[in-house]
Amino acid sequence: MTYDIVIKGGTIVSSHGETRADLGITGERVAAMGADLEGATIIDAKGKLVLPGAIDVHNHFQLPFCGTTSADDFENGSKAAAMGGVTTFLDFAIQAQPNSVLDTIAMRREEADPKVCIDYGLHPAITNWNADCKEELKKVIRDKGCPSFKMFMVYKAQGWQADDPALYGALTESAKHGGMVAVHAENNDLIEALQAAESGEGVPGCYAHALTRPAITEAEAINRAIMLAEATGGRLYIVHLSTGWGADIVNRARAWGIDVQAETGPQYLLLDDELFKREDGHHFGTCPPIRKPADQEKLWKRLADGTLEVLATDTCTFNSKQKAMWEGDYKKIPFGMPGIETLLPLTYTTGVRAGRITLGKMIQLLCENPARIMGMPTKGHLNVGADADVVIFDTEEEVTITPSVLTTNCDYSPYEGTKVKGWPMTTLSRGKMIVKDREFVGAAGQGKFIMREPNKG
Amino acid sequence: MTYDIVIKGGTIVSSHGETRADLGITGERVAAMGADLEGATIIDAKGKLVLPGAIDVHNHFQLPFCGTTSADDFENGSKAAAMGGVTTFLDFAIQAQPNSVLDTIAMRREEADPKVCIDYGLHPAITNWNADCKEELKKVIRDKGCPSFKMFMVYKAQGWQADDPALYGALTESAKHGGMVAVHAENNDLIEALQAAESGEGVPGCYAHALTRPAITEAEAINRAIMLAEATGGRLYIVHLSTGWGADIVNRARAWGIDVQAETGPQYLLLDDELFKREDGHHFGTCPPIRKPADQEKLWKRLADGTLEVLATDTCTFNSKQKAMWEGDYKKIPFGMPGIETLLPLTYTTGVRAGRITLGKMIQLLCENPARIMGMPTKGHLNVGADADVVIFDTEEEVTITPSVLTTNCDYSPYEGTKVKGWPMTTLSRGKMIVKDREFVGAAGQGKFIMREPNKG
Amino acid sequence: MTYDIVIKGGTIVSSHGETRADLGITGERVAAMGADLEGATIIDAKGKLVLPGAIDVHNHFQLPFCGTTSADDFENGSKAAAMGGVTTFLDFAIQAQPNSVLDTIAMRREEADPKVCIDYGLHPAITNWNADCKEELKKVIRDKGCPSFKMFMVYKAQGWQADDPALYGALTESAKHGGMVAVHAENNDLIEALQAAESGEGVPGCYAHALTRPAITEAEAINRAIMLAEATGGRLYIVHLSTGWGADIVNRARAWGIDVQAETGPQYLLLDDELFKREDGHHFGTCPPIRKPADQEKLWKRLADGTLEVLATDTCTFNSKQKAMWEGDYKKIPFGMPGIETLLPLTYTTGVRAGRITLGKMIQLLCENPARIMGMPTKGHLNVGADADVVIFDTEEEVTITPSVLTTNCDYSPYEGTKVKGWPMTTLSRGKMIVKDREFVGAAGQGKFIMREPNKG
Amino acid sequence: MTYDIVIKGGTIVSSHGETRADLGITGERVAAMGADLEGATIIDAKGKLVLPGAIDVHNHFQLPFCGTTSADDFENGSKAAAMGGVTTFLDFAIQAQPNSVLDTIAMRREEADPKVCIDYGLHPAITNWNADCKEELKKVIRDKGCPSFKMFMVYKAQGWQADDPALYGALTESAKHGGMVAVHAENNDLIEALQAAESGEGVPGCYAHALTRPAITEAEAINRAIMLAEATGGRLYIVHLSTGWGADIVNRARAWGIDVQAETGPQYLLLDDELFKREDGHHFGTCPPIRKPADQEKLWKRLADGTLEVLATDTCTFNSKQKAMWEGDYKKIPFGMPGIETLLPLTYTTGVRAGRITLGKMIQLLCENPARIMGMPTKGHLNVGADADVVIFDTEEEVTITPSVLTTNCDYSPYEGTKVKGWPMTTLSRGKMIVKDREFVGAAGQGKFIMREPNKG
Repeated sequence: MTYDIVIKGGTIVSSHGETRADLGITGERVAAMGADLEGATIIDAKGKLVLPGAIDVHNHFQLPFCGTTSADDFENGSKAAAMGGVTTFLDFAIQAQPNSVLDTIAMRREEADPKVCIDYGLHPAITNWNADCKEELKKVIRDKGCPSFKMFMVYKAQGWQADDPALYGALTESAKHGGMVAVHAENNDLIEALQAAESGEGVPGCYAHALTRPAITEAEAINRAIMLAEATGGRLYIVHLSTGWGADIVNRARAWGIDVQAETGPQYLLLDDELFKREDGHHFGTCPPIRKPADQEKLWKRLADGTLEVLATDTCTFNSKQKAMWEGDYKKIPFGMPGIETLLPLTYTTGVRAGRITLGKMIQLLCENPARIMGMPTKGHLNVGADADVVIFDTEEEVTITPSVLTTNCDYSPYEGTKVKGWPMTTLSRGKMIVKDREFVGAAGQGKFIMREPNKG
Repeated sequence: MTYDIVIKGGTIVSSHGETRADLGITGERVAAMGADLEGATIIDAKGKLVLPGAIDVHNHFQLPFCGTTSADDFENGSKAAAMGGVTTFLDFAIQAQPNSVLDTIAMRREEADPKVCIDYGLHPAITNWNADCKEELKKVIRDKGCPSFKMFMVYKAQGWQADDPALYGALTESAKHGGMVAVHAENNDLIEALQAAESGEGVPGCYAHALTRPAITEAEAINRAIMLAEATGGRLYIVHLSTGWGADIVNRARAWGIDVQAETGPQYLLLDDELFKREDGHHFGTCPPIRKPADQEKLWKRLADGTLEVLATDTCTFNSKQKAMWEGDYKKIPFGMPGIETLLPLTYTTGVRAGRITLGKMIQLLCENPARIMGMPTKGHLNVGADADVVIFDTEEEVTITPSVLTTNCDYSPYEGTKVKGWPMTTLSRGKMIVKDREFVGAAGQGKFIMREPNKG
Repeated sequence: MTYDIVIKGGTIVSSHGETRADLGITGERVAAMGADLEGATIIDAKGKLVLPGAIDVHNHFQLPFCGTTSADDFENGSKAAAMGGVTTFLDFAIQAQPNSVLDTIAMRREEADPKVCIDYGLHPAITNWNADCKEELKKVIRDKGCPSFKMFMVYKAQGWQADDPALYGALTESAKHGGMVAVHAENNDLIEALQAAESGEGVPGCYAHALTRPAITEAEAINRAIMLAEATGGRLYIVHLSTGWGADIVNRARAWGIDVQAETGPQYLLLDDELFKREDGHHFGTCPPIRKPADQEKLWKRLADGTLEVLATDTCTFNSKQKAMWEGDYKKIPFGMPGIETLLPLTYTTGVRAGRITLGKMIQLLCENPARIMGMPTKGHLNVGADADVVIFDTEEEVTITPSVLTTNCDYSPYEGTKVKGWPMTTLSRGKMIVKDREFVGAAGQGKFIMREPNKG
Repeated sequence: MTYDIVIKGGTIVSSHGETRADLGITGERVAAMGADLEGATIIDAKGKLVLPGAIDVHNHFQLPFCGTTSADDFENGSKAAAMGGVTTFLDFAIQAQPNSVLDTIAMRREEADPKVCIDYGLHPAITNWNADCKEELKKVIRDKGCPSFKMFMVYKAQGWQADDPALYGALTESAKHGGMVAVHAENNDLIEALQAAESGEGVPGCYAHALTRPAITEAEAINRAIMLAEATGGRLYIVHLSTGWGADIVNRARAWGIDVQAETGPQYLLLDDELFKREDGHHFGTCPPIRKPADQEKLWKRLADGTLEVLATDTCTFNSKQKAMWEGDYKKIPFGMPGIETLLPLTYTTGVRAGRITLGKMIQLLCENPARIMGMPTKGHLNVGADADVVIFDTEEEVTITPSVLTTNCDYSPYEGTKVKGWPMTTLSRGKMIVKDREFVGAAGQGKFIMREPNKG
């Protein structure tokens, strides 16, 4: 039998281990794994790792926020993703009231579908839990491919906040249909009060951003969401967990058998809040803020011990001009940074190469776990039948991170100057080569919306 | 390309999910997975599950014990295993003093190698930790394929017991070489004292066996071993965990980041100690004893939540004639029962079919986790390059368990009368068909000793 | 030396034990304990217990609430208290906006001072935490005798609710001055949402009150308050804890060293929510509601093990006419019941006599702990120098509880028909006999406002 | 009324607070507390604290050990105690096989009764738990005044060790009669093995003593004893707890409701194992050894939070000549140091004055708790009816600790050079002055054996 494409001679990686085998692709799917496969097209992967494409479950492309729109649109953002070895991303469809959830999904798909270069899915973000949402939820989860949806415990001023009854209701309802509630866990009122009390004057740079969001503001919200999950039996997912305290709470809850998962991201593992004191500190303004070195250490530990199961970036690119809109007021920083493009290489170098996690664990964090938790059974692995989303990764390629080597539409990088060894060279999306030797060869609109599946379990 | 064997049309199962694909085998290995594979030999698997062969990490074939020898020798035992869909087993090489550990392994291999019908490995059981053992350990772990070794916290009378310094020393030393200490966790002295105080008179059947080994006798030993693991940084594995109390202790320790894994088995999930009151109660005499319904319930919960990662049988077949040697003295019961042959079908029916665990979880418990924990990267999955240990499982096949349908050399079954739906029809071991439509077609000596790998951390 | 009063021949009780001695009183104070004391007035206590007067730290006399005013005013309420062996009570001074905290205290004292028959103190209830409160707090705590103050996590509709920043701010600020925040811990929003979703139709009696305040609504609030206390280092006190879940959370927090204390009351120990299904179920309407038998059991356990340190009644008497204002709408039930008068005898019979707690433990719960925690060093014990608040308690006196034997201004009793054995016969308040052989002989205005002391840490 | 003795003008201290009152004593008992008491003899206590005499529940006078006998016999030891403000001590009656427990108590009393200057009690130490002991236990607990008895989890070589069945049996049996098992919790086998592996060569001083008894050797034993207590419902007491790890285990167990109490002592709070490296390091040789600064810190925290309820000294005086018998072999150090004499002043200065504990907490740790836990209701407080064991303590008296100011028969002090402020000036034992202005005026044989009471709770 002759396959459309055969990736030859590489080492195929999964959390089960590493296999020296050819990978045969027919159409959009992995058709075979084996020795000496014959293919119409041959891609040489000798000496390289053949990975399932990474999945970044937390992105905001072309997000209107803070009076501007995030600088990577679906096209450039997904292109950057592909360049960085990411073949699937999940973005958000944030309800602008009074739009229904279903309409919101539809509208967001209209923005994304023509532009995306890789496959993507959506988390609707429900900003006003009510009887209508409840009504829609079953359809959203079961028929529209959006089994996870987001709720903000923060951003009341923006009209996005879900209060406790909303969370309680959503957890209760989604449990009936196999859904999962993903929360941005911060205590809104506490933060607002601390901000009201903190002028920001006399504080270097935008360090007031860290001061007004101390660990308790995250830890409390995480803990509250967990209690509501325990009470309702609902499935809970904590996005961008940033504090060691929060990670410890999740650890404890999981040991007690509560159904809670959590993600963290490279920014929380690698950056700390001393950066806010720099002149360009606002470039690092994300939400929740980057934390202390002790938090980093605890987060690495909680990744290694299985408490935190997903790495995701919360990409929301604002370039320096946009970031400048803060005008010295830390409350006006457009929150967000580029990230999707560097997710895989940073994790490889600072995680695997540095000995903090194994290669198999990296595949779990970037591929297998996100696919499993987010209901995408054909993603995240290279078993026969899987989508042929493949990355050929050269562990010897050395790159110094700086805007000029990146595709993201940003004139700075939060990881500026970081030297990594190991980089994705070639990327396939559903059997189509879209990056070839670090050059983008794909096209807008080639990506598809993923109908994610509800939890069966 | 034409493969030696192609298993056609089945559903290949792993914890990642289920794949409709052909499985190509060349020589001893899985060579390909894909659609429309061509093979010299075709095995039809339409409508059936294609599973990695199950792994039973806890067996005692032809074990001299209690003045007799367990009734399944390596040939018949491994044949029974194959009939039940098990393609790998780990047995024990128990040091008879003053033999060295290395000699013990060599002698046990002499007994097993010519007889085994499937692949197997050995846990040496160190019965006298001393400077010599310490000296041998690196070699045993790194060069002899035995990275896990057993220590008995019980069986002092038999001269097998490891006291705390032995455990402490072994944990400390094995940590240096990537080894793992597997403990039979029971408090020997407490049991002996309770036995001394309990004549067994006036107690129905052999119920005194349960009375003299209350939950504390296991829970205390588990907890002690865990503390020693915490103090030394050593890797710990609890064999045949039987109590809910013990499982809770393991759960807590794992949440604290202590490196401890644990197995339980079907006997502890499905049988309870009321059976000891029956006239044939001694048939159910194992060690630790079967427990209470509340323990069963807790163990199922702890399997589902990931605390217990392995199912294994502690097979040690004694037929009714051998069992009769107890002569009414519960202390003289030859401990052990047949089990390896029914491991997979019982787990499928009482676990998966009953909705207590998912199919993917069953594959983890019987295949993936044992392979990973015990250092057998080519076992437990069907990725390309894996050993072609395959089971074709018919989920519709109905069987009522009774000795006449089993191969084990035993005239009773602990699960007598249990109706299961789902049975392994055909078994391949390293690419060779050894069971065909529930008939054994393999041969003694065909199995190989597995050089297991140390933990890389 | 001759004392003004000598209580002769009784058994003086403290948590240290029981002492057969005379108790000498001079003026308002315990002046001596000893044998054969000589006194101007002799009170015979032979065969009886001599107890420190009980302290009820949670009362609402003449509270305007739900369009009526609680039926026991300061005079009758404190008279009933005295009849029941209570010599000190703490009431609440609830801020009506825009009154200052200091004014609120002053106004409440104006209402109480001329009427009270026994000593009393006030917890101000801060209903709008702001810069002014913060300003006042030091004075309130240090100069005005109110080191503890209450915040409601519930009652938003009434304009009383303290949100998280208020709690956070109050905990932070009060920690500086030795204050303590007492919270009514219920999740307001969740309750409101559950009420909105529950019409109450088709539910027997006022059982909807229980349904709309499930355990999570208390447990979550307790846990949140504890996290804020942990973050701020503030001192926290949970009033009327009602659920087993909540008690477990407090237990855990205390073991972690967080400074949290909690009270429960007889209603939560002795009544359960099946009562709501009765025609007169609304008589039992309190807030939080009475719970399940399993909660009762857990609360007794948590009293015995020291987790819960105080018993208090949350007395807020509404007679059946007032209660009738509910008109079938469970949301309109005037919450509250009489209680202060039966606190001591119910605790004695259902706690001490029933073997759930010891006599010494009862003295801790009703006398020593409230005095210590609430900053009243001269109350709660009978050491020399203590206020001569004394109860002569006859352990053989049998009483069947019913309105006609009680002084409270209420035509029903929640404990109707309960037979108790053990009753306070004679009560002294600061050296003055105010109850003599179950007859009130005191006078309005005799009680004094207690300048409670801040915590010294 | 005229009392035999009146202590005038002092401040009487209990955990309830401080009372300015005279203390009247008639015969052996506190007869009155009050103002202006008249007495045949007046002791001036103006400006001073009047404390209940301290209780040291852990002492070994004239103990044959390591081929010598501890240097303070019952006479000098109890004299030193009195000089230090201790009015009650508990010593041990260690069974020398084959003596019965009852005989052992009788023999020890023969040694002690004629010599003791203050009251004392005995913990029998059961060194061979068997049917005879079990038989004797009820009598020992109920009739012989010894409700607590000791078991060594260590000292196997000395023939003293209690193994797990012994502990299990003793806990089970003593629970029936209101007894309590006090354990010296160290893992004997582990220590012996570590000693066998550690020559002591190349290690400075007697530091090998610390190296061969790492924290795990205590923590494991504590945890094991707690599990046995949980399983049996027996009452457990941990003597001389020395590690932070151990204290954390006790904290957790108590929060879980297990009936375990624990003591620590000044040596573990104030000394650390760097001292072993000094030339005179063996002077500090106790068992368990003094620990790390982090342990000290944790122990203070666990005293303050109520986990550890008793301070006791484990006094076992060996003078420098006796200590010299170690001859450079750390295993031959006669374990023990003087301590009873400095217990109260050291606790006052390093605890109360240093702000780590309050004065009331000190009274709990040294008086009230030991009395309550050990069944001595007339000791540990100064309520009327209590034994008139009184200490007049001058908080301004400054003393630099050195052998010349101490009575103990020892030529060094572990606390050499420590400056304390606060010293017991005058001591009364059951109404008799035995120390007057720091001069001993008592007499051998004046002390009485205390018939301690079993636990009723």
